[in-house]
Amino acid sequence: MTMSVDETIGALELMLRSGSDIDPEDAPKMQALLDEPPIQDVVALVERQNPVRAAVVLRLLSREKSIAVFDALDAAHQADIIDELGNSDVYEFFDALEPEDRVSLLDELPAEIADRLLRSLDKPDQDITGVVLGYPKGSVGRRMSPEVPDIYREMTVDEALEKLRREAPDLETIYTVPIVRKDRRLVGVMSLRELFIAKSGRMVEDLMHEPIYAYAQADAEETARWFLPLDLLALPIVDDSDRLIGLLTWDDAADIVEEEDSEDSARSGGTEALQQPYMSTPLLKLVRSRIVWLLVLAVSAILTVKVLDSFESVLEQAVVLSLFIPLLTGTGGNTGNQAATTVTRALALGDVRKSDVLQVMWREMRVGMLLGATLGILGFIIASLVYDMHIGLVIGTTLLGICTLSATVGGVMPILAKVVGADPAVFSNPFISTFCDAAGLIIYFFIARAVLGL
Amino acid sequence: MTMSVDETIGALELMLRSGSDIDPEDAPKMQALLDEPPIQDVVALVERQNPVRAAVVLRLLSREKSIAVFDALDAAHQADIIDELGNSDVYEFFDALEPEDRVSLLDELPAEIADRLLRSLDKPDQDITGVVLGYPKGSVGRRMSPEVPDIYREMTVDEALEKLRREAPDLETIYTVPIVRKDRRLVGVMSLRELFIAKSGRMVEDLMHEPIYAYAQADAEETARWFLPLDLLALPIVDDSDRLIGLLTWDDAADIVEEEDSEDSARSGGTEALQQPYMSTPLLKLVRSRIVWLLVLAVSAILTVKVLDSFESVLEQAVVLSLFIPLLTGTGGNTGNQAATTVTRALALGDVRKSDVLQVMWREMRVGMLLGATLGILGFIIASLVYDMHIGLVIGTTLLGICTLSATVGGVMPILAKVVGADPAVFSNPFISTFCDAAGLIIYFFIARAVLGL
Repeated sequence: MTMSVDETIGALELMLRSGSDIDPEDAPKMQALLDEPPIQDVVALVERQNPVRAAVVLRLLSREKSIAVFDALDAAHQADIIDELGNSDVYEFFDALEPEDRVSLLDELPAEIADRLLRSLDKPDQDITGVVLGYPKGSVGRRMSPEVPDIYREMTVDEALEKLRREAPDLETIYTVPIVRKDRRLVGVMSLRELFIAKSGRMVEDLMHEPIYAYAQADAEETARWFLPLDLLALPIVDDSDRLIGLLTWDDAADIVEEEDSEDSARSGGTEALQQPYMSTPLLKLVRSRIVWLLVLAVSAILTVKVLDSFESVLEQAVVLSLFIPLLTGTGGNTGNQAATTVTRALALGDVRKSDVLQVMWREMRVGMLLGATLGILGFIIASLVYDMHIGLVIGTTLLGICTLSATVGGVMPILAKVVGADPAVFSNPFISTFCDAAGLIIYFFIARAVLGL
Repeated sequence: MTMSVDETIGALELMLRSGSDIDPEDAPKMQALLDEPPIQDVVALVERQNPVRAAVVLRLLSREKSIAVFDALDAAHQADIIDELGNSDVYEFFDALEPEDRVSLLDELPAEIADRLLRSLDKPDQDITGVVLGYPKGSVGRRMSPEVPDIYREMTVDEALEKLRREAPDLETIYTVPIVRKDRRLVGVMSLRELFIAKSGRMVEDLMHEPIYAYAQADAEETARWFLPLDLLALPIVDDSDRLIGLLTWDDAADIVEEEDSEDSARSGGTEALQQPYMSTPLLKLVRSRIVWLLVLAVSAILTVKVLDSFESVLEQAVVLSLFIPLLTGTGGNTGNQAATTVTRALALGDVRKSDVLQVMWREMRVGMLLGATLGILGFIIASLVYDMHIGLVIGTTLLGICTLSATVGGVMPILAKVVGADPAVFSNPFISTFCDAAGLIIYFFIARAVLGL
């Protein structure tokens, strides 16, 4: 019997879906099937299962594979699964994680279980995990790998290589080699590649470069975003006295960036990030990630009812005006969203800073005017033909006004959020839409009153 | 005079902003200032400048630094700057790029200039760049590094290390070592770390692992997303006959992921991605990235005018109904956006697949009903108190209906887009809003007609 990877995974999904309890007779069959596909497909399979089924798969895998699969899961998903596993499995999985991954998992667990897990480690592992736990959430220190090589500037290339070779089993990476003085102050950096191709007998001191490094207290996202433009594989992390205490490796940096991008993406849609794969997220977690935002937005939208209420007499005299309400508020919302999305992403990537607020405002005002003029002329022509010139004039000028205002507001809001220390993405698209709705309606009725003489 | 990095960069920004022509007397001063900050700050400075000013900075930097800075820029920004640089600079920068980065830049340039640049390379570089150019845009082959080591399974660890040492200067990475047979078919992979700590005299064949690899024709984004869960540093790329032809390195994979995330983020806001930093993007490029979407959305929004037009008699009899239009359409849009954002991100990360469409629909329907019930009860109470029970009933049931519909539609649309081969993010938030607006209005007026007996 030869099955393709997709067929094997499909068969496994079917067996898992058939019930929460696996038929004991099925277990050996599943075990055999699970041995076939490459590890990345098993990870993808587990990512799609709820905690109960994920635990079943982990128990059926070989020891080595199950540890690798558990390691590849998101911390929130790991935490969900832990309840379904026996203690001995849990301790073993936890022990096999890198110190910084242990800390991410601990952050997702109730204090009591976290304590128990931490105590299950042997002393050296407890200590090294404690170093990472000592730094605040959101800092680089909390995500760094605390295991670093001991390479001193006084060594020769050969001594350094020999030391790396001995220490390698305990290190997360040996490809970026930080160089320290005897007092552990960071003085340089070399790549393993450079050490590897250097002439035997040369001094590390003479070959090392100026290090690019970060302080443990620094913002994790900002630091992680350096990796891409600078082609970094790992970044030395130092304490306040410039002493080497860890390395931020590229995979942890990429994790940080992905988490932040997921969060920004979620918030731009007015929801909270799930922290774990969609298919394995319980339904109530989905509801919880959305309900707060939705309520806040609905309550703010009462503003639009208020605005319309105050123009009710105008509406009664010209019901035709109500026909354009969704079109106009929609266009305002869209223009605002475009600007907010662009600027929020630029802030995340570090392309725009707080001090750019006036420049961004001026740019967005002009962009909004150009967009508004284009739409306004079109709106004027269409509304004039279908209704009359007066309505055409109202729609055209309202579009110009709404687009200019919305682009400006949409562009500036994310920066203002950052200035007051909030996440730029909290002024999410839905939030900006709601604001632009209300402001747009006011513009609309003022123009309508003036042009139609109501 | 000692200045902090921020002060130095600030002074440079001021000098650059003072005019497009740099005072000849200022040049040595700027040159001195540019020598101070670390390279990542110079990159950030250049990323914020328009092409003219960016070229000024590049010319003032030392040869080595200017090459590193140019290398770190986005391809679209590089292409903008090329017009402002002298030919000899351009050729030198182009020559210093990795083959796959050259191809990304060529993609951004007019054919004529691209040709000229390609011909400026020496023959071996032309050939190696040609390998990458031979694969279609969006494929892994187009982004791989075509320079691979020649390590055969019959070698000993020592022979392999010696060969790597010799070939290193020509290779982009030596940390992931693909192992081939004599006919160049990929048979295994080892990390440099494993080779490095292996016992002298052992055979590569006995130490290598099953390779994780990708075909050159495979989708670049999908492949790049494997790196994070699998902790890959580089991935061997093979042709249709399983022969090794390149390596996708982690930095190029991270580039691909960032581009795709930027594109998804932009489209979720109803705009096109900028491909280069916001502050250096010309104003008209900003307008162009938004106008098409805005027009499409405005034209679709005419649908809402049509819907309202057909209920005009209802509106005339109960103007109060028009007050709730923005609130109801807004809430529908928000619920739809939440679902669409979540599912689009899940598709991008590979957590949801096309075949999950029914499961996602069923999940989102239930989530939408729960959200709608919560909002509906609140809406019923508030509207009953402020207006009357009949209006309360209309608002409450409409909210329930709109939320259920919007979440279902918002969740399913991105998957349907993928099924027909489009980018899931084309059903962006604004697009879903517009659809939910029109559908919500129909629900609203049918319920209103029934309850109020109009």
